[in-house]
Amino acid sequence: VSSGSRSASSSTDDAPFQPVRWAGDALELIDQTRLPAEEVWLRCERPEQVADAIRRLAVRGAPAIGVAAAYGLALGLRESSGDRLDEVYDLLALTRPTAVNLRWALDRGLAAREGGYEALLEVAHEIAADQMRADRAMARHAAALFSEGDRALTHCNTGPLATAGFGTALGALNQAWTDGRLSHVWVDETRPLLQGARLTAWELGRLGIPFQVVPDATAGALMSRGLVDRIVVGADRIAANGDVANKIGTYTLAVLAQRHAIPFYVVAPLSTIDTATATGAAIPIEERDPGEVTPNGTPALNLAFDVTPAELVTAIITEAGVLEQPYNESIAAALRRTGR
Amino acid sequence: VSSGSRSASSSTDDAPFQPVRWAGDALELIDQTRLPAEEVWLRCERPEQVADAIRRLAVRGAPAIGVAAAYGLALGLRESSGDRLDEVYDLLALTRPTAVNLRWALDRGLAAREGGYEALLEVAHEIAADQMRADRAMARHAAALFSEGDRALTHCNTGPLATAGFGTALGALNQAWTDGRLSHVWVDETRPLLQGARLTAWELGRLGIPFQVVPDATAGALMSRGLVDRIVVGADRIAANGDVANKIGTYTLAVLAQRHAIPFYVVAPLSTIDTATATGAAIPIEERDPGEVTPNGTPALNLAFDVTPAELVTAIITEAGVLEQPYNESIAAALRRTGR
Repeated sequence: VSSGSRSASSSTDDAPFQPVRWAGDALELIDQTRLPAEEVWLRCERPEQVADAIRRLAVRGAPAIGVAAAYGLALGLRESSGDRLDEVYDLLALTRPTAVNLRWALDRGLAAREGGYEALLEVAHEIAADQMRADRAMARHAAALFSEGDRALTHCNTGPLATAGFGTALGALNQAWTDGRLSHVWVDETRPLLQGARLTAWELGRLGIPFQVVPDATAGALMSRGLVDRIVVGADRIAANGDVANKIGTYTLAVLAQRHAIPFYVVAPLSTIDTATATGAAIPIEERDPGEVTPNGTPALNLAFDVTPAELVTAIITEAGVLEQPYNESIAAALRRTGR
Repeated sequence: VSSGSRSASSSTDDAPFQPVRWAGDALELIDQTRLPAEEVWLRCERPEQVADAIRRLAVRGAPAIGVAAAYGLALGLRESSGDRLDEVYDLLALTRPTAVNLRWALDRGLAAREGGYEALLEVAHEIAADQMRADRAMARHAAALFSEGDRALTHCNTGPLATAGFGTALGALNQAWTDGRLSHVWVDETRPLLQGARLTAWELGRLGIPFQVVPDATAGALMSRGLVDRIVVGADRIAANGDVANKIGTYTLAVLAQRHAIPFYVVAPLSTIDTATATGAAIPIEERDPGEVTPNGTPALNLAFDVTPAELVTAIITEAGVLEQPYNESIAAALRRTGR
């Protein structure tokens, strides 16, 4: 391991596994499109390879994309000594237009360009280390809410694969398991791309946490049978009032949770909160290719996200602690407290 | 067409299409496991072929299974002159232990055994014709509840493929479309076996009714956007108090419908009502092979059905009319009225 990996080693050695890792002279990524059938590692020595990996979802999850992009920018500076850096920035920034962390990470790297390749590499290590710290803090705050024997239900993928750290919602479940406060995880398969059945199941298997995958439409039956004690999900964007945009199906879980009086937790870093968005109604919802739902050309609608109104969210758990209703106030206070 | 198809012709010529049809000397079935990729017809000349088709879901849907089994019994009598009929009865009855219509249809056939092959064939034609009449009546009663421009959401498959007639919930949608009271159908894909994306989409395409398939977890987002005016589903068993067992995911739709004040209709023949079952809690829920959810061996739970409490059901629409709450009373009255 070369000196370039110093910060990464010191900060993320406690990760359950490292799907995004710096190998001294190149970025290595586990190809998430091939999981769980195969664990194929991609070696990226040039920024074009990083951009390609983000574009085709080989690396996904907003925080993980931010980390990968920061390394991609450093690789761009290494090979071009700065002449081509703006071009590399655009190449990486345009891969996924809606991922907030992507531009934020690239801007943080660009601000360090005068320091050269080593400085940009250091920024990338810092972004990875910051994410790990935030993930760890969220997990501690969230796990403290669990009780021994709890059975939790989660949706989509929110583990190390999604954050390049400890995970958000899945990090919380991992901590609760370690603390003896979790007995079973129900994993929504998360159609159409099966991030739950493919990625979360793979992560839980590695972590040794007991789980079962269920079709998304099964959650209601599990709750009416009394088999779910908590619902824990991540977030793609949180509005200033606490409305939460997350993977399609999240809203339905929140409605069912309310009927069955089951706590519904959102675990997300403060960087996911967008105070420029007043309410969920202002959050644009990505509509993806219908072919992901019906590959044979049958007409389909493929909404990638939905919005859960703040009234249905029991708590938003951030690295700054557990936020509760009314979220307009608790969110503003958390951001003030952390100087954001 | 031989004389044997007389009754079938006179009774079901108005079917949108005939997935279960008597071809004069054999039963022909469209293989539902191959839809929508291929329209493959199975020709059954012996009862063993009918049993095999039911067992491997080439023909499915409780009413359609009943019709197919009645023809299977007739085929058994043709080849054995009665010696082997009890054996054929058992062969057919044991294919799907939970389908209520199966044994009922076989018993109706067996009672006519003294009349020989022609009598059993006539019983099969009658069962098919009765189903078509019930389907038509349900469709008329249900369609009258619709308003021009309505957008309906449905789950699983409840059309001609499922009843060998006009369909239950999908028959209602077909009638509403014909009457100018329907503009669009949202089709839940219905994981894990995709009866919505495969079979309902195929039927709606043939009927020329505009539709889009959605992943099951999308229904909540559609409702919160105001894109759903009515929810229409079938039923596998209805308890005396109006609790409804139906394909997994139905309960979630009913909970979402209540939140959004959207009418939630169950369309089912009186034969689906089981007055020996007091409430939904007494309905056994089939748990199927987890491999249908995760073919790669990942742990999974595969509940085939769930129970929707009567309080969430706006109306149960039968061939005897529209039943409303309290269902204990309206169901008992409908059964009395029809002499069942």
